[in-house]
Amino acid sequence: MSDLVFYTNPQSRGQIVRWMLEEVGAPYRTEILDYATTLKGDAYRAINPMMKIPAIVHDGKVVTEVAAICAYLADAFPDAGLAPALTDRADYYRYLFFAAGPLEMTFSLKAIQYEPPADKQRMFGHGNEALVFEALDRMLGDRDYVTGTFSAADLYLASELGFMMRFGMITGSPTLQAYVARCTDRDAYRRGQQLDTEAAEAMKAAVPA
Amino acid sequence: MSDLVFYTNPQSRGQIVRWMLEEVGAPYRTEILDYATTLKGDAYRAINPMMKIPAIVHDGKVVTEVAAICAYLADAFPDAGLAPALTDRADYYRYLFFAAGPLEMTFSLKAIQYEPPADKQRMFGHGNEALVFEALDRMLGDRDYVTGTFSAADLYLASELGFMMRFGMITGSPTLQAYVARCTDRDAYRRGQQLDTEAAEAMKAAVPA
Ligand SMILES: N[C@@H](CCC(=O)N[C@@H](CS)C(=O)NCC(=O)O)C(=O)O
Ligand SMILES: N[C@@H](CCC(=O)N[C@@H](CS)C(=O)NCC(=O)O)C(=O)O
Repeated sequence: MSDLVFYTNPQSRGQIVRWMLEEVGAPYRTEILDYATTLKGDAYRAINPMMKIPAIVHDGKVVTEVAAICAYLADAFPDAGLAPALTDRADYYRYLFFAAGPLEMTFSLKAIQYEPPADKQRMFGHGNEALVFEALDRMLGDRDYVTGTFSAADLYLASELGFMMRFGMITGSPTLQAYVARCTDRDAYRRGQQLDTEAAEAMKAAVPA
Repeated sequence: MSDLVFYTNPQSRGQIVRWMLEEVGAPYRTEILDYATTLKGDAYRAINPMMKIPAIVHDGKVVTEVAAICAYLADAFPDAGLAPALTDRADYYRYLFFAAGPLEMTFSLKAIQYEPPADKQRMFGHGNEALVFEALDRMLGDRDYVTGTFSAADLYLASELGFMMRFGMITGSPTLQAYVARCTDRDAYRRGQQLDTEAAEAMKAAVPA
């Protein structure tokens, strides 16, 4: 049996990987890190020199970056059916990288309320926020899922969009709202959320009053 | 025979895809777009609603995002040997997405001379510039290539680093400099650069005096 360890904090992007692990269905061990202490310690630094969560270690192999972990697990556990065949990955990679690049950029720049001036938009990989959402709307306007059936690309893209909606950063067009609702209407998503809620409560209970 | 079209401008991130196409070795047709006109026209907008280059269309399938195009071509043309086996993609995805996310973010924020304040670094996927380069130095300190042998992950990562060095945005540690030199010491890279230089000159010559 394979050895799979998941490093996370329940209140983080780790929720995305949790969902992915629940989709995959392989047994895994969860290590909860504390932002101020264990996340910055030498032991974890050897796993991820960025000192960020989430990360996984699968049979001794480290993977960091949420999108990379999703893509890795989809390939490593093909029975879960979360990645298309190697010959059919145009949309799959296109939108995985779109979410990891331009959409993440939009998310981060919104947090500092920065929109690139017109002369800088040529250089910024996402151009501007309106472009990013128009592109997603157009793509999702003609299909239910990125590749036709639910895949790791949807899991990651819908999670990023869902975070932005939950944090009140975007409302989301009806198309995007319906997409996020459709993608998250899955048992593995609900199990993941439940496990992270429980982990967050256990952490709170452990804090001395 | 497969049909492969490459949309680019010789002075753009399209150079990365050009190199990748030259590695793959499949015949392709190049469509040069002008930033002010054809790039913003309806014909291209139907291919990439972001109105950005590069893009490819392979047998009717569109791929945008440089990293996605590299990953796609590596899988679509397995004989080029630029992607590891599906069961061995931990480092491959980790650093493809690291370059597309945190490194691109570093690149863009340097262009506006913004470094996130300490309390925002937890949220920014790259943390800060020093972390990003320390992480790359540590990873490349113990190997010649991301996955042991040259792959699409090196092609993309070395290209991004090479751009930042060429533009004077970073000097790069000796490890990073040696890595970029090693990755670009390839016939396909030189052919790609040559083709883009010629295309740029042809564009210049076409501008009325
Ligand atoms: N995230 C995109 C970035 C593409 C991009 O920003 N391309 C630039 C040229 S390097 C562009 O087309 N700029 C023209 C514009 O935005 O008007 C990718 O990786 O392909
Ligand atoms: N690009 C990374 C981002 C990871 C990230 O920024 N994680 C945050 C939590 S959501 C973190 O660990 N922050 C703690 C810190 O930077 O100190 C990914 O996709 O995994």
